[in-house]
Amino acid sequence: MIKDKNIVWQNSLVLPRIRSNILRQEPVTIWLTGLSGSGKSTIAFALEKALLNINKLAFVLDGDNLRHGLCKDLGFSEEDRSENIRRVAEVSNLMNNAGLITISAFISPLAKDRLLAREIIGKSRFYEVYVNTSLDTCEKRDCKGLYKKARMGLIKDFTGIGSPYEPPIEPDLLLNTEILTIDQCVNLLIEHINLISKDFWPAHL
Amino acid sequence: MIKDKNIVWQNSLVLPRIRSNILRQEPVTIWLTGLSGSGKSTIAFALEKALLNINKLAFVLDGDNLRHGLCKDLGFSEEDRSENIRRVAEVSNLMNNAGLITISAFISPLAKDRLLAREIIGKSRFYEVYVNTSLDTCEKRDCKGLYKKARMGLIKDFTGIGSPYEPPIEPDLLLNTEILTIDQCVNLLIEHINLISKDFWPAHL
Repeated sequence: MIKDKNIVWQNSLVLPRIRSNILRQEPVTIWLTGLSGSGKSTIAFALEKALLNINKLAFVLDGDNLRHGLCKDLGFSEEDRSENIRRVAEVSNLMNNAGLITISAFISPLAKDRLLAREIIGKSRFYEVYVNTSLDTCEKRDCKGLYKKARMGLIKDFTGIGSPYEPPIEPDLLLNTEILTIDQCVNLLIEHINLISKDFWPAHL
Repeated sequence: MIKDKNIVWQNSLVLPRIRSNILRQEPVTIWLTGLSGSGKSTIAFALEKALLNINKLAFVLDGDNLRHGLCKDLGFSEEDRSENIRRVAEVSNLMNNAGLITISAFISPLAKDRLLAREIIGKSRFYEVYVNTSLDTCEKRDCKGLYKKARMGLIKDFTGIGSPYEPPIEPDLLLNTEILTIDQCVNLLIEHINLISKDFWPAHL
């Protein structure tokens, strides 16, 4: 719902295929969801590097990083988390419109928020990847010491402890970092993008 | 101010120069400011097309378009306008980080908001372009019929009528569409980007 009916949409003069031709890629959003410590950010940044290495223009939108900038006014209430995901989805969509492959790494615990992201970005270019490392393993790793704080009651609304995580019902891809190395995750993702992104490997390369 | 001290910044593994090498351009933000009807959006989309025509990856962030998505929860109070500009500046910054040339077309009437945008994006890559078409001309054009509504009191907070516009003191470039054609504006902007963006015209082209 837009607040003002005096706001008129203006189309770009550049067709999406012009961007695809320049970049030799189709824009998609790889949406990584999973618990804190599951490996989302590590996979996201490794995938970004691997894609840049083969001259594909990708960019990571990372949960913690966005909360330093665009979303720094938001907390962790259910309402704020939804607004966080909405804004990220809007930025993913803009980046796809610009021609980029977007890699979004967000806990995004609620199915309804991920559904909204899918709607904003568009079904045909949204790929939900569930980093399904178990809570037990994430808590044992506790890279940032947050599970310990959550168990001590110092962080409320912590996903998996004081706040729910709703697993995706039909994710496009499952990545469990208890079983797979980061390199294996990246290779699986690139294979997957290759399948979904026509002209990903143009004939002249 | 970030709401939570448990949020840790994570760096990309891809250096900015890798992106510059792939795209053969330096990322900058061209920030077009001026009254409604001054020609900002028209110039922005024409510049985007001209840049894509020479294989430069640019993307327009347009005031009205953003208010259909990322900023659709915001109105036109001074507070909401500031938040609108803050979010747009954060997105411009992310797009620059991704390697793109960003063209931002927003009335952005207040000097303090444009200053915040400059700080978020970084002085070295923020270029303020004042589309200084006069209020008189903008009102005569009245492409969207908004000045008429504002004069009738149907739109309050309309910039130039019920709400102030603070002209930039030292803009990087002035474009007056009463004197210049759109093509002339675009050519001046490309000359300007050429000056500020090293390696804009790589030797092998």
